[in-house]
Amino acid sequence: MTAPANFNGQRPVIDPNDAAMLLIDHQSGLFQTVKDMEMTVLRNHAIALAKMATLCKIPVITTASVPQGPNGPLIPEIHESAPHATYVARKGQINAWDNPDFVAAVKATGRKTLIIAGTITSVCMAFPAISAVQEGYKVFAVVDASGTYSKMAQEITLARVVQAGVVPMDTAAVASELQQTWHRPDAQQWAEVYGMIFPPYRLLIESYIKAQDVLKNNEKLDSERA
Amino acid sequence: MTAPANFNGQRPVIDPNDAAMLLIDHQSGLFQTVKDMEMTVLRNHAIALAKMATLCKIPVITTASVPQGPNGPLIPEIHESAPHATYVARKGQINAWDNPDFVAAVKATGRKTLIIAGTITSVCMAFPAISAVQEGYKVFAVVDASGTYSKMAQEITLARVVQAGVVPMDTAAVASELQQTWHRPDAQQWAEVYGMIFPPYRLLIESYIKAQDVLKNNEKLDSERA
Amino acid sequence: MTAPANFNGQRPVIDPNDAAMLLIDHQSGLFQTVKDMEMTVLRNHAIALAKMATLCKIPVITTASVPQGPNGPLIPEIHESAPHATYVARKGQINAWDNPDFVAAVKATGRKTLIIAGTITSVCMAFPAISAVQEGYKVFAVVDASGTYSKMAQEITLARVVQAGVVPMDTAAVASELQQTWHRPDAQQWAEVYGMIFPPYRLLIESYIKAQDVLKNNEKLDSERA
Amino acid sequence: MTAPANFNGQRPVIDPNDAAMLLIDHQSGLFQTVKDMEMTVLRNHAIALAKMATLCKIPVITTASVPQGPNGPLIPEIHESAPHATYVARKGQINAWDNPDFVAAVKATGRKTLIIAGTITSVCMAFPAISAVQEGYKVFAVVDASGTYSKMAQEITLARVVQAGVVPMDTAAVASELQQTWHRPDAQQWAEVYGMIFPPYRLLIESYIKAQDVLKNNEKLDSERA
Amino acid sequence: MTAPANFNGQRPVIDPNDAAMLLIDHQSGLFQTVKDMEMTVLRNHAIALAKMATLCKIPVITTASVPQGPNGPLIPEIHESAPHATYVARKGQINAWDNPDFVAAVKATGRKTLIIAGTITSVCMAFPAISAVQEGYKVFAVVDASGTYSKMAQEITLARVVQAGVVPMDTAAVASELQQTWHRPDAQQWAEVYGMIFPPYRLLIESYIKAQDVLKNNEKLDSERA
Amino acid sequence: MTAPANFNGQRPVIDPNDAAMLLIDHQSGLFQTVKDMEMTVLRNHAIALAKMATLCKIPVITTASVPQGPNGPLIPEIHESAPHATYVARKGQINAWDNPDFVAAVKATGRKTLIIAGTITSVCMAFPAISAVQEGYKVFAVVDASGTYSKMAQEITLARVVQAGVVPMDTAAVASELQQTWHRPDAQQWAEVYGMIFPPYRLLIESYIKAQDVLKNNEKLDSERA
Amino acid sequence: MTAPANFNGQRPVIDPNDAAMLLIDHQSGLFQTVKDMEMTVLRNHAIALAKMATLCKIPVITTASVPQGPNGPLIPEIHESAPHATYVARKGQINAWDNPDFVAAVKATGRKTLIIAGTITSVCMAFPAISAVQEGYKVFAVVDASGTYSKMAQEITLARVVQAGVVPMDTAAVASELQQTWHRPDAQQWAEVYGMIFPPYRLLIESYIKAQDVLKNNEKLDSERA
Amino acid sequence: MTAPANFNGQRPVIDPNDAAMLLIDHQSGLFQTVKDMEMTVLRNHAIALAKMATLCKIPVITTASVPQGPNGPLIPEIHESAPHATYVARKGQINAWDNPDFVAAVKATGRKTLIIAGTITSVCMAFPAISAVQEGYKVFAVVDASGTYSKMAQEITLARVVQAGVVPMDTAAVASELQQTWHRPDAQQWAEVYGMIFPPYRLLIESYIKAQDVLKNNEKLDSERA
Repeated sequence: MTAPANFNGQRPVIDPNDAAMLLIDHQSGLFQTVKDMEMTVLRNHAIALAKMATLCKIPVITTASVPQGPNGPLIPEIHESAPHATYVARKGQINAWDNPDFVAAVKATGRKTLIIAGTITSVCMAFPAISAVQEGYKVFAVVDASGTYSKMAQEITLARVVQAGVVPMDTAAVASELQQTWHRPDAQQWAEVYGMIFPPYRLLIESYIKAQDVLKNNEKLDSERA
Repeated sequence: MTAPANFNGQRPVIDPNDAAMLLIDHQSGLFQTVKDMEMTVLRNHAIALAKMATLCKIPVITTASVPQGPNGPLIPEIHESAPHATYVARKGQINAWDNPDFVAAVKATGRKTLIIAGTITSVCMAFPAISAVQEGYKVFAVVDASGTYSKMAQEITLARVVQAGVVPMDTAAVASELQQTWHRPDAQQWAEVYGMIFPPYRLLIESYIKAQDVLKNNEKLDSERA
Repeated sequence: MTAPANFNGQRPVIDPNDAAMLLIDHQSGLFQTVKDMEMTVLRNHAIALAKMATLCKIPVITTASVPQGPNGPLIPEIHESAPHATYVARKGQINAWDNPDFVAAVKATGRKTLIIAGTITSVCMAFPAISAVQEGYKVFAVVDASGTYSKMAQEITLARVVQAGVVPMDTAAVASELQQTWHRPDAQQWAEVYGMIFPPYRLLIESYIKAQDVLKNNEKLDSERA
Repeated sequence: MTAPANFNGQRPVIDPNDAAMLLIDHQSGLFQTVKDMEMTVLRNHAIALAKMATLCKIPVITTASVPQGPNGPLIPEIHESAPHATYVARKGQINAWDNPDFVAAVKATGRKTLIIAGTITSVCMAFPAISAVQEGYKVFAVVDASGTYSKMAQEITLARVVQAGVVPMDTAAVASELQQTWHRPDAQQWAEVYGMIFPPYRLLIESYIKAQDVLKNNEKLDSERA
Repeated sequence: MTAPANFNGQRPVIDPNDAAMLLIDHQSGLFQTVKDMEMTVLRNHAIALAKMATLCKIPVITTASVPQGPNGPLIPEIHESAPHATYVARKGQINAWDNPDFVAAVKATGRKTLIIAGTITSVCMAFPAISAVQEGYKVFAVVDASGTYSKMAQEITLARVVQAGVVPMDTAAVASELQQTWHRPDAQQWAEVYGMIFPPYRLLIESYIKAQDVLKNNEKLDSERA
Repeated sequence: MTAPANFNGQRPVIDPNDAAMLLIDHQSGLFQTVKDMEMTVLRNHAIALAKMATLCKIPVITTASVPQGPNGPLIPEIHESAPHATYVARKGQINAWDNPDFVAAVKATGRKTLIIAGTITSVCMAFPAISAVQEGYKVFAVVDASGTYSKMAQEITLARVVQAGVVPMDTAAVASELQQTWHRPDAQQWAEVYGMIFPPYRLLIESYIKAQDVLKNNEKLDSERA
Repeated sequence: MTAPANFNGQRPVIDPNDAAMLLIDHQSGLFQTVKDMEMTVLRNHAIALAKMATLCKIPVITTASVPQGPNGPLIPEIHESAPHATYVARKGQINAWDNPDFVAAVKATGRKTLIIAGTITSVCMAFPAISAVQEGYKVFAVVDASGTYSKMAQEITLARVVQAGVVPMDTAAVASELQQTWHRPDAQQWAEVYGMIFPPYRLLIESYIKAQDVLKNNEKLDSERA
Repeated sequence: MTAPANFNGQRPVIDPNDAAMLLIDHQSGLFQTVKDMEMTVLRNHAIALAKMATLCKIPVITTASVPQGPNGPLIPEIHESAPHATYVARKGQINAWDNPDFVAAVKATGRKTLIIAGTITSVCMAFPAISAVQEGYKVFAVVDASGTYSKMAQEITLARVVQAGVVPMDTAAVASELQQTWHRPDAQQWAEVYGMIFPPYRLLIESYIKAQDVLKNNEKLDSERA
C-alpha cells in the first residue's frame, strides 16, 4: 500500500471537484510548539489553504483540540478566509477521525478526496490521514501547512504517511493543482495566494508594476536627474 | 514488504492492548556519541516512553550493551519511570534479538506489536526491529527516542527500516496513539509527558494557569498600579 | 572613537524627544538580495520602526536608491505606517548623506539623535551612519531592520559601525527604549508592535484572552463534555 | 568606555564577595519568544545561576514584567533554587533600573559588582546593565542565561553592551569564577551545577562512577560471561 | 507503482538514445523564490543539463510560465547552451503536460525516456513528471536542477515523485549516465560540465595543469629562490 | 522492487560469509568535491570499512577513476588497512560495473552479497549498486562512506537506490552487522573501528581506563591534595 | 588603537584617489581549503574587487604563495579583470609585507590607503593588514573577498584586525564606497559588478528589462492568448 | 585596555623567541562537553600547537583539572608531540594562574609572550589569559584550539578576552606567525602541520605529487588505454 492508495490506476493528483479540505488543530497554543519551520510560515500556509478552498468552492471542515485549555483557540484567519467552513467540536478525541461528528461531516461533503493539514503533524494530521486511507479515501497530506516540534519529527511523519499510501504535498503544489491555469478570471487572487506561500512573489509583483509604470509615466531615473 | 509489515490490511497504528515496549542500550557512554539531536532531548524522549508505558500498563523490556565497559550504565530514569520493566542482560550480542533471553522475554509478554527505541539507532534499534518484522511482529520504531552519531546516519536508518516494513514514529505520535483521548482521568499526567517531549507545552500550562488565576484573584496588572 | 560617539559621558540610550528616524532604501528589488535574515522578517521590522515613530511622534525621513530602476519601489507599508514621513529623492548618490537635500531634511528636524536602518546594511545603513557620527550626531543603527546579502556581510558591518562609534540596536530594543513603560494609554498598540517583531507574542495574546474568556464564560473543556 | 567599565585597572573578574545577582523577567510567556538558543537551555542556565548564588551566598534580586498579562509568571525554579532572593514588583517600567524600588534593592545589598541576566536580552538584560555601568557598577552580563528572539538580536546586543563597558560572560564562566576551586566541601554541588550547564558532564559522572564500581565489585563484563 | 515505473524489469537508468530533456520554467522571476539551494547553483545545474543534451544530441523542449508577467523571462543561457532546443509557449496552463502543443512536441521526439527539471520543483517539475509516468514514459526527475521555496518543499516533492514511480536524479548522475566513459573525444567538454556542477573540479584542473607545468618548465619553487 | 531486492524473504541483513566489499573511487581529487559531510569523516569511514573487511576476512575490490588525471590517486589508507584488496584498473568507464575486469573480480569472489561505497555517491556508488541489483546481487550501499557534492545530492541518491532495491546502511551498522558480538577475541580491534566512526568513543575508552587506573593505583584527586 | 587607525579624525571611509588594492594568494589550491563561505562566492568577490579597481583606475598589486607547489596557481580572472595589476613574486615569506619587493611596490603607488583581501584570511590578509597599520597606512580589510578554513577562524580574524585598527569591509561596501554615485557614465558596469556580489541583482535586471519590453512591444500575456 | 595589551606600540604579533605556550585542560572527559566545533577538529588543533612549539623550540607548559575525576586524563598526543613540555599538577584551582607552581613555571621560561589554549574556553583559557594580561604579558588566545559547550559561549568569550586586551588567534595564524617563511629546512614538517589544521591541504599534497609522478613516469591515463 505504499503506492498512492485508492487511486486505482488514476493519476495521483487532486481533482478539485472531488476534494474536501480538513484543517485540524491550528491553535495558538500548539503553534508555540512548532519548530520544524517558522511558525509565521506555517500560519501563512494554513491561511493560504483556506483561501484556495474558498476560490475553488471546496468544502472545509475545521476542528480544534480542547481549545478551552492550554492548546489555545483556533487562529481566527482560517474561518475568516474560508467563511463557509464547518467547525466540529470534538469531545477529547486526539484523532479527529475518532470523533463521529467529524467523520459524519466529511461524509456529508460527498467528496472522496481529502486535503489534510494539522498541527501537530505526526498526530493531528497523520492520524486522520492514515484513518481515511483505510476507509477508501484518496488522501493528500499538506506537510508544510502542518507543524511539529522538530525537523526530525516532520521527516519521520513524512515517511510514515507515505508508507501508508498518503500522497505528500507542499502548499504551493496544492494551490497549483487546484488552480490549473492562469487563464481564469480570478488569476489575480491566486497571485496573492502565492505571495503568502513564497513572499518574494509579492516583491516580484511590486517591482513588475513599477517597472511598467516608469515607462507609462515617462518617469526619469533619479540618477539621471540634473 | 515496504508497506507496513504484518498488519494484514489493518490500519497501521498501535493497539495499546497488544503492545510491548523495548528500550535498548540507552547508556551514559553511548549517549556521548549521539549527534543527530540534542542528547538531552533524546534522554527526555526515552524517559517519556517509559512513563507512557507505565500509564498504559504496557510491558517494557530493557537491556544494555556491556554496561560494565566504556558504553556505561543504563540511564537510571528509565527504570525509575517504568518500575515494572524487565531488564535482560545480554552476553555480548550486539543485536538484542540474537540473545535468546531477550526474545523469550518478548514472547512472554504475549504481545505481537512492538514499540522499539535504542541507541545507537542504526544498530541497537534497527537490528531488533528488522529481526522482529521477520518473525511476524508489527514493529513501530521510535526514531527520535533513539540516537546516533550523525543526522545522515539517522536518515539512512529511517530509510532502511521503512524499506523493511517497520512503521516509523516520533515520540509524540506514540504518546497520542496510546493516549487516544483527553477524556480520561490521567489527562494531567499525559500533559506532563508532552511537556517532556515539547517543552513549550510546559510554558503553555504555566501561562494558562496564571492567566486564569489573575482573573480568579482579581489581580491587577503591575502596569496599572498607581 | 570606538566608545559610543558623541554622548559625552551620558548614558548611551535613545532619548525619544531628541530622535529622528532615517529609513533608507527599503525597496522591493533590493529586498530580493537580502540573505542575512528572512526577508519577511526584515519587512516586518522596518514596518515596526515606522509604527513606533508614529506612536512617539518621531520625525521620519525616507529615501530610495533609483526606484525607477531594478532596485524597485519603496515598500508601501512604511509610508502607510508613518504617514508623517518625509520622502527625499536622491540624484544617484549611494550614500544618502552625500545628498544635500537629505542632510537638510535631517537638520530641519532639529534632532541630534538618529535611528538609522537601511537596505543593504553595509551601504545604505552604514554609510550615512558613519557620516552622521562624523558630524556630531548620536547614531543608533538598527541592524535587524536592515538587510544584506550574507550573514557574514552583516557581521562585518556590525563590527565596522561599532568601530566607528555607532550604537548597534535590534528592533525590539528600539521599541522598548522608545516606549519606556507599559503604564501608558497606547500600551495595546505597543503590544501589536512586538507582535510584528516576535510573532509568538501575538500567539501569547490570543491564548491569554481565550484562557480568561473560558473562565468568564464558564466554558467547559471539550474533553469534559458528555 | 569600551574597556571594562569601573574596574580602575583591577583584573576584570567577579569578586564573589562584592557581587549581587539580578535575574530579570524570566517568564513563561516571554520564554516562548526566545529563538537564539533552545529555551530549555536558557531555563537551565537561569536556574544554574540561582543555584550558584545560593552556594556562594550572593544576594539575588528578581523582578518580572507585568506577570499578570501575556508575559506570564516568573518560572518557579528561580525562587526555588534561590529562596533568599528578593522579588521586586515594577509598575510597568520596561527598564528595571527605571523602577526606584529595584534600584533601592540593589543598593541595599551594598555590593558594587552586578551579575545580570534577563529575558529578552536586548531589553531586560541590556537596559539595566547599561544603566548600572553609568552609575559606577562593575557589570557582568550573562548572555547565555538571557534569551531573545533571534541569534542576530543576541549578537547585536553583545556588541552593544561590550561597547558600553559591560563584561560579557557565559554561564559556565560565572560558575567557575564564583567557585574558584574544586578543593571545597560543596564540590559535589558545583558538579551538579555544571551538569545543568553542559549536560554531557552528568553523563561523565555516571560513567565514571560505574567504571569504578565495576572494579570495586569485581563485576564481569557481560561479553565475557559464559 | 513505487518501483521505477515503466521499466518492465530493465535496469532503471537513462538510455541516452531514448531520452528527451524537458526544461521547464527556469525564469528570472521564479528564481527569486528559490530557497532550497543557492540560486546560482540551480542556474548552473540547469545550464549544465542543456550542455549535456547538446553533447549527446538529446532533444530538448523548453517552456515558460507566462514570461510576460512577474515570473519573468527564461534565463538566456539555456537556449545558448542548447541551441537545438524547441520552445513551446503555453496558454496559461500550469502543468506543461496540460498544454497539447507541449505533449505533441514530446511525442514528436519519438523518445520514451524523459529527463525533467523545472522551477518550481513541486509544480513545474512534478506535475509533468507524474503526468508522463501515467502515459507510459520512463521519467527521471533532476531534483537539484529544479528549485523551490523551501528545503521542506523539496523533500516533500522528492517523496511524492518517488511514490509516483519517477526515478530521482541529481545533476551529476545525469551527466555521468549520459557520458558513460572518459574514453571519448569530447572528454574535455564533460570535464567543463562537471566544473559547473561541482566547482572544486575546476580548481582541481587548474592545480593539476600547473603541477605538471612546473615540472615541464623546470620551474623553481619561489621558496627556493635565492 | 522497492523492497530489498534479491533476498527472497530472508532477513535483509549482511551475511559476513557471503559478502564482498567494493570500495570505489576514494581519490584525493574527488574528495575535494565532497560537501555532504566533512571530508575527514568520509575518509575515516572508508578506512573503517577496509579495517572491518580485514577483521572479517571479507574480499575487497578497489578501483579508481582515471587516477592519472585531476581526480587524483586513491587515498593510501584503504590498501594499507585491507592489504588483501584487489585493485582493478578501468579504461575510462564511469560505472565500474561497465568494466568487464571489475565484474569478473566480483564474480571471482563467489559472494552474492555486496557492500558498496564510492565517491561520488550518486555515480561511483549508485551506478554499480543499481547494476548489481539487476544481476541478482543483494546490495548494501554505505551512504556515509561515500561522498558527494551536496546534501541534497546525497538525499536524492538515497531515494534512488532504495527505490531500486538496494539496502541503505551507515558505516556503524555495517560494522555491527559484521561483528555480531563483543564476545570475540578481536573485540579490542572493533572498539578501535568504532573510535574511527564516532570519535567520542575513543574518549570514552580513555576516560574509562583512567577511571579504573585511579582506583587501582590509589591515586588521589588533585583537588584533595594538601 | 582599536578605533580605525591612522585616520586622524577623518571619516573612516575609502578615498578612491588615495587607495591601492592588494590581492594576495587567491590560488586554486588554497581555495580548496576555504570553508567559511562558498568558494564560488569568494572567487566572484575577488574578481569583483579586481573589476572595481579597473573601473576606478586604482593600482593593484598581486602576489602568490609558492604557486609552484600544492598551493597552486593564482586564479586567472584576477589579472584578466585588472590587466594593470602588478605581480610580485615572493621568496617564501608568508607575510607578503615581509617581502621587500612587495612593500616597495606598495610604496611606489604613492597611496596611503590600502584595500586588502587574501586567502587564507587570518594569514595572507591579516598579517599584511596589521603590518601596514603599523607603518601608518589606512587599511581596509575585505573579509568576504578573503577565505579561510572555518567560520570560526573568520570571526576570530575579524576581531583581531579590528582590534589592530583595521577597518573591516564587505565586498559590496567597497564597491559602493568607490562608485559613490549612479550618476556616472559607467553605471552599467557597476551594475554588473553587483551582479557578481549578489546574484539576485542580475535576475532583477533581467526581469526589469523584460517587464518594460512587454509594454514596448505590446506583448500579450500567454495566459490571455486564445 | 581594549587595544592589544602590553605591546607598547609594537606590532601586535607573536615573536617566536619571546613566546611560551600554555596548553590547559585538554582532557578526554571535558572534550565530551565541547559543542562549538567538532571535537576531532579541536583535538587536531591542540596537537598542531604542540607540534609547532616543538618545531620552534618554544617552551610548553601543560596542566589538567583534576584528571583523576570525571574530567578525565590529558589527551596523550600533546606530550607525544611536545615531549619537552612541562606538566604542572594543580590542587583544585580552576584558574591555572591561581596555582603558584603554574605561574612559577611560566616565569621560569623567561618569556613575556604567551600563547594560550584551553578547554573549556571561557574558563580554562580565558581566566589565565585575563590574569596574564594583568601581570604585563602579551597574550595570544588560540580560540579554535580551545573548546566549549556552545557556539554562543565561544562568541561571548571572544568578546570578553578582546575587551581585556588579549589578541585572538586561530590555529593557522599561530602556525604562520611562528613559521614566517617556507624558505626553511623544516618546510615539509610545517606542511604536515597545516594538513592537521585544514585537512584539504593533505589532499592537495597527495594530488600534487601524483600529478608530477604521472609525468615523471610517463604514466598513461586509464581512459586512454586501449
